[in-house]
Amino acid sequence: MSTLQITGGRVLRPDMSVEEADVLADRETGKIISVGDVAAGDETLDAEGCLVLPGLVNAHCHVAMTLLRGYADDKPLDAWLQEDIWPVEAELEPADVRAGARLGFVELLKNGVTTVGDMYFHVPEVAAAVEEAGLRARIGHGIVTIGKDEADARADFEEGLAVARELDGGADGRVRTALMPHSLTTVSADLLGEYIPRARDAGVPVHYHANETPAEVDPIVEERGVRPLAFADELGMLEAGDFIAHGVHLDETEIELLADHDVAVAHCPASNMKLASGIAPVQELLDADATVAIGTDGPASNNDLDVFDELRDAAMVGKLKSEDASAVPAEAAVRAATEGGAEALGFDAGRIEAGALADFAVLDLEAPHLTPEHDLVSHLAYAVRGADVRHTVVGGEVLVRDRAVLPLDERAVRREAERHARAAIDRTAD
Amino acid sequence: MSTLQITGGRVLRPDMSVEEADVLADRETGKIISVGDVAAGDETLDAEGCLVLPGLVNAHCHVAMTLLRGYADDKPLDAWLQEDIWPVEAELEPADVRAGARLGFVELLKNGVTTVGDMYFHVPEVAAAVEEAGLRARIGHGIVTIGKDEADARADFEEGLAVARELDGGADGRVRTALMPHSLTTVSADLLGEYIPRARDAGVPVHYHANETPAEVDPIVEERGVRPLAFADELGMLEAGDFIAHGVHLDETEIELLADHDVAVAHCPASNMKLASGIAPVQELLDADATVAIGTDGPASNNDLDVFDELRDAAMVGKLKSEDASAVPAEAAVRAATEGGAEALGFDAGRIEAGALADFAVLDLEAPHLTPEHDLVSHLAYAVRGADVRHTVVGGEVLVRDRAVLPLDERAVRREAERHARAAIDRTAD
Repeated sequence: MSTLQITGGRVLRPDMSVEEADVLADRETGKIISVGDVAAGDETLDAEGCLVLPGLVNAHCHVAMTLLRGYADDKPLDAWLQEDIWPVEAELEPADVRAGARLGFVELLKNGVTTVGDMYFHVPEVAAAVEEAGLRARIGHGIVTIGKDEADARADFEEGLAVARELDGGADGRVRTALMPHSLTTVSADLLGEYIPRARDAGVPVHYHANETPAEVDPIVEERGVRPLAFADELGMLEAGDFIAHGVHLDETEIELLADHDVAVAHCPASNMKLASGIAPVQELLDADATVAIGTDGPASNNDLDVFDELRDAAMVGKLKSEDASAVPAEAAVRAATEGGAEALGFDAGRIEAGALADFAVLDLEAPHLTPEHDLVSHLAYAVRGADVRHTVVGGEVLVRDRAVLPLDERAVRREAERHARAAIDRTAD
Repeated sequence: MSTLQITGGRVLRPDMSVEEADVLADRETGKIISVGDVAAGDETLDAEGCLVLPGLVNAHCHVAMTLLRGYADDKPLDAWLQEDIWPVEAELEPADVRAGARLGFVELLKNGVTTVGDMYFHVPEVAAAVEEAGLRARIGHGIVTIGKDEADARADFEEGLAVARELDGGADGRVRTALMPHSLTTVSADLLGEYIPRARDAGVPVHYHANETPAEVDPIVEERGVRPLAFADELGMLEAGDFIAHGVHLDETEIELLADHDVAVAHCPASNMKLASGIAPVQELLDADATVAIGTDGPASNNDLDVFDELRDAAMVGKLKSEDASAVPAEAAVRAATEGGAEALGFDAGRIEAGALADFAVLDLEAPHLTPEHDLVSHLAYAVRGADVRHTVVGGEVLVRDRAVLPLDERAVRREAERHARAAIDRTAD
């Protein structure tokens, strides 16, 4: 047994209390052995002056879109996608996606994110980057059929299903998959009816964008006479383990459906602000006992992958939405970015206790913006940023030590991504 | 003449273009001598791989409230003030305010903030901390008369006026002042009528909270039959050089008054979210040609002093408010946090050109979250954080070099603040 001992720090426990404790992790099982007064480990990681918390979970992302960070801003979702994003994405080669994913994973690891949910294309490249970077991910091919003929539409579903089947369980179980139809308005309902059961047969969950904008709600209500999530339910897309992204424009019946069916919502507050999509009813989801996770969405609509910033946004806009400063309190936001995210993505992580996966973000508390220390959970929600992360650990393996990413060469990854981004945009202009 | 040359970087110019350029500053006048291909300086500051931008301006703060960061969260403004904040503030001694201000200034400098607008009490201590820390500030005593008898109310106004008169021009002109009545609903209108002319005689502007919540609007409309800013105008509180904080609940006539009278708004988006106050109509203010600045408000309602985060919030919530993703674009948010802030606070700063004050934030661009470099102004609005600041310069003096604060001992300042915060809270509990 090879073990890692995190020493000298304070630990955030599942009940949101903070205690002085060491943590011992087994690198073979990837799990936490004990918390508190632990046996000596084979390797130690210094957490003096630090807070050890569960690794953060970014439950909805398109990570290779790092390539398009800052390429186009300040435009509404439809125009932004059609005029800027999709034309470049049409030019992206597998090697571009690999470069973009590598860059995103370096950024995520530096920000203390240990698990990500990712929908994109050229997904084997994303899986390969997950393997290299050492984090966990639930990934899938974003299936879009709108504007495609039957053969192309079917081919896209086949790719989505093949990717989900073949990549699941890769990288020693760090890679999991899902069938990822893009949304209820961009994917053929007939083909969903055909392929969702095949995803169930393959044992993978379903992830899709839902109710992000009124344009994802109104056409369904008009054509089908039901709310989008009732329609999703008819299609068999609301089973335990499934998770949706956004959920901005939900009515009460849909919130109830999500809670009853144990389907999590990856709340993406920054993207929803930047694209003027609105604010998700997070406190109402919490009140209904639905699982709320936090996602950055793609870095082109954010424009970064800092889940601390995102959970702060969740607490902030949650109060605006509810017109109540007590809504989405610090603890709820922190929980959404850890335990909620792990639950959404189906990993036994997000809490520091024996038996859970040994994924950690170790935060340097020695900073002016984290002084004084009245309440560390408040700091996690309202003052900590990704730059405060000193170490990141996944399955007992140290992936970031003293702010340096170990599995990948940060400088080389940045240069490679810059080169691929420029080349893709040049090809688009041609 | 003693000069500082910032070498090897790229510079953000007033038209928001970015060019490779050196900057030469005169430390005696504190002003920029030239930009581009400059003469050699007496001292150099390395900006290789960096973006040199105007030092950020935090136009509305209560900086010593660092002591109460995270002390109470997730409560509405009234309850939060009355149950948590005011009882502790009543116990704060001058030395506490000095310790809290020092901590806040260390944080601001590390975040590239070179100028701050600050309303608090024990203001000579704030001025002394400004002198020590080396940044610029427009400061004042927050006058509150509600619940006070005539003598106490008058004494508070006298203190506000004395502070404004006596401290103005201190620290070689880095300290400027204003008369700072807290708000139109917490200060006697009769005494405002008497003291505003005295502030004009003293040559200082007026700064106050306005229209932050409906509770600051409705009583005035009911009692006086006019909107709050029309009432402020009657009281002579809307003259060029004056600036208000918040301006969340403004109607069209008030936006027009602000623009016509050249009165700036310090927009505090994070505080307005956290206290569920609402969203200021920033795009409408910009459309009316009003001056918009950015403020963090006190660190207890934020909970940090990162103006990059704040300008991002401004761009983000501006889009929500206007229901338009093109509202409050990156450039407008960056301008508000630099030129807009300098204009609000009355310093000839906020733009990098010969003759302007030599205040800079030098950002390290070599980071995954700032890769690739499609658009640096987009990065400033949506991806840069305070932790990216490598150097901070005020009046040609280097105050932060390679992320280390030079005028103050960061570690000692943090410990001192922690001690004062705990002692004040202990006194409150007694």
